[in-house]
Amino acid sequence: MNSTQSELRALAERLFSEIRNLTYDGVGVTRESYGAGVNAAVKTLVDFARAEGIHTHFDGAANLVLSLPGGGDAPALWIGSHLDSLPQSGNYDGLAGVIAGLLCLVRQNREGLTLARAFKVIGFVGEESVWFGKGYTGSSAMWGRLTLEDLALASRNSGRTLAQCLEDAGADMAKIRAGQPVVDRREFAGYIELHIEQGPVMVQRGWPTAVVSGIRGSRRHPKIRCVGEAGHSGAVPREFRRDTVVAVADLIMRLDAHWRSLLEEGRDLVVTFGVIGTDPAEHSPTRIPGETMFSFDVRSQSVADMEEFHGLLRAECEAVSRQRGVEFVFDRRMEMSPAMMDAGYTQVLTELSRGLGLPAELISSGSGHDAVIFTEMGIPSAMIFIRNDKGSHNPREAMDTDDFMAGVSLMYEAVQRLP
Amino acid sequence: MNSTQSELRALAERLFSEIRNLTYDGVGVTRESYGAGVNAAVKTLVDFARAEGIHTHFDGAANLVLSLPGGGDAPALWIGSHLDSLPQSGNYDGLAGVIAGLLCLVRQNREGLTLARAFKVIGFVGEESVWFGKGYTGSSAMWGRLTLEDLALASRNSGRTLAQCLEDAGADMAKIRAGQPVVDRREFAGYIELHIEQGPVMVQRGWPTAVVSGIRGSRRHPKIRCVGEAGHSGAVPREFRRDTVVAVADLIMRLDAHWRSLLEEGRDLVVTFGVIGTDPAEHSPTRIPGETMFSFDVRSQSVADMEEFHGLLRAECEAVSRQRGVEFVFDRRMEMSPAMMDAGYTQVLTELSRGLGLPAELISSGSGHDAVIFTEMGIPSAMIFIRNDKGSHNPREAMDTDDFMAGVSLMYEAVQRLP
Repeated sequence: MNSTQSELRALAERLFSEIRNLTYDGVGVTRESYGAGVNAAVKTLVDFARAEGIHTHFDGAANLVLSLPGGGDAPALWIGSHLDSLPQSGNYDGLAGVIAGLLCLVRQNREGLTLARAFKVIGFVGEESVWFGKGYTGSSAMWGRLTLEDLALASRNSGRTLAQCLEDAGADMAKIRAGQPVVDRREFAGYIELHIEQGPVMVQRGWPTAVVSGIRGSRRHPKIRCVGEAGHSGAVPREFRRDTVVAVADLIMRLDAHWRSLLEEGRDLVVTFGVIGTDPAEHSPTRIPGETMFSFDVRSQSVADMEEFHGLLRAECEAVSRQRGVEFVFDRRMEMSPAMMDAGYTQVLTELSRGLGLPAELISSGSGHDAVIFTEMGIPSAMIFIRNDKGSHNPREAMDTDDFMAGVSLMYEAVQRLP
Repeated sequence: MNSTQSELRALAERLFSEIRNLTYDGVGVTRESYGAGVNAAVKTLVDFARAEGIHTHFDGAANLVLSLPGGGDAPALWIGSHLDSLPQSGNYDGLAGVIAGLLCLVRQNREGLTLARAFKVIGFVGEESVWFGKGYTGSSAMWGRLTLEDLALASRNSGRTLAQCLEDAGADMAKIRAGQPVVDRREFAGYIELHIEQGPVMVQRGWPTAVVSGIRGSRRHPKIRCVGEAGHSGAVPREFRRDTVVAVADLIMRLDAHWRSLLEEGRDLVVTFGVIGTDPAEHSPTRIPGETMFSFDVRSQSVADMEEFHGLLRAECEAVSRQRGVEFVFDRRMEMSPAMMDAGYTQVLTELSRGLGLPAELISSGSGHDAVIFTEMGIPSAMIFIRNDKGSHNPREAMDTDDFMAGVSLMYEAVQRLP
């Protein structure tokens, strides 16, 4: 490691540590969107950036923007992520991407590197859906994509509406209410986001960094009801039963088998039955369960694969209904579209990874990121994942600083090479 | 149908109707053990019996005893069942057996039949476990089988303890507290109970009556916990999951397959997972379920078959644990012994059935009856089941009076023929 690298590493540790200490809640960190924890993080970053000679300002949606002086309004590459967190959560989810961009600015400044195309760093002050029941609030506000219903949502903590929060933070409410972007689309040549992985894949495979191929969409049913017939557990023989627990178990095993087969074909699919339950008002260990509810969630980068799997859910429900005398009652289906990362960007990032001795590996993102909004705006987007143990959205998330610095190096190459 | 038969049928309809009307709660009937509904049924039966010249008294445990005068203390055959019901329940569960015995006394009296061995009728004033959390209270008190803990149990309705209820009803509390029978074992030559079937077998097979071979025991776990690992539903691939809903579904399907195979071998087994659930405090459609609980209940007339199936539960839990990275945490096992009916009595009853043109068929009882207590006291016992649609313990139970009268005829033959 050369002296710049070790200086950057020390800065990273200092920034993560200072912001963690300012937002520690006794269990993890709490940085409510537009709240005190986010403000503390913003102030720390602004003070640091100014001391480094980096320009700071806030866009018309109150997001923090960092840049080296002199870039002007020419199209730039934007490096972003979010500054808010869940309550009692981890320090790296979101914050890592903003600090990575800031360290790239510091390095460029210290090395006196001149780039054909400038890059800017943006820290969104709202992204986690836990606070308002709506995700991506910072990037959505920026692009004029919040509805009046969204703006009327109240924070589950402060009770203030999203509109009040944005207004108090100095946002351009006239444009936001009118559904207009507060930024000029022409200033955006592309978007890159560095984020910790929220699953175990990179830990298991030994990848410190990886390049995200796309962000999975979903097809979801929060509550499907299986209706059969209750009866005495001792007095009803097998052939006369319409047992809903066994019917749902049968359904789950059929779909698990389909999932395994489709994975063997190389499909991108994750399938989860996160909630299951007989009715506490009438269930009993000595009663054949007459009704069982369960949830269903399938995610994929491919709309076709999600739809195919949803079709298998429907078909297997029909087969189980016929064979076991039960009925499945469906709730309304919830849909989230997948977002594919820019193929050119992704290819450059994998080549740069190889050049740095990092894995040239692709990974799917199972959860959403601000990159979804930039993709939907037609802006070429890419993401770098950093290995992280113990998942995210909990205080045990564990990113190694060496892995993070490898990601910063990759990001620094990318800002010099991406078209 | 001869004139005696049609008279008896009219009496049956009148008694069922009167007692139903006196104990109707707006939905079904409610006859709390030792409570107002039971007292109303007792008064109706006593008034009717006395008008027919039948002797009535109460044993030292407050159970109603009906007999023709002159039998004395010689060993008798006892016909019994219970007078209490669940809340908002059906009219026939229990009451049918007492009325059947009473009609046999009426018939014997009207026909002037002399028997070598007398029979008596007993109506237990407590049997359903719903009131005190303990079943068979009437027959248990009679045989000195209530513990001091049992006697301290409070009714879920009145709040009065079982001891208070028995004392107020005039029971011999000194003997009951000392665990001594309030009756003389030598007066009991045998016990017969007529009861509605609580499952659908006889309706499906077209049997108006059947002879019970035995009462199933059980091996039960109210709450087995499956512990795995929670995680993000989108970010954790299949091979890294320790998903407890899929693990429990796998377990249930393995055991369902074993159950089917064992039934094909002719084993007597019923298996129920009546309760299943992820934890409402932490489950979500977008979270891999880290813990799922479920109940297990296996019943059989054969202790060996129940133990074998419980062994399969243990073995399959171990297999699923190994293959899916989860752990099963067992609660304490609850056990109820099966009770086999007397083989000689059962054979006589099937022969008598054939003679009357009724099915000479055997059936298992999946739920417990007072006959369990008599079997455990070493008294030869038998049961007659009457076809009943829609199960029991609900106001929709539907016994046909023709089927009931066929059972009464069988009972009347039995009291003349049983040794």
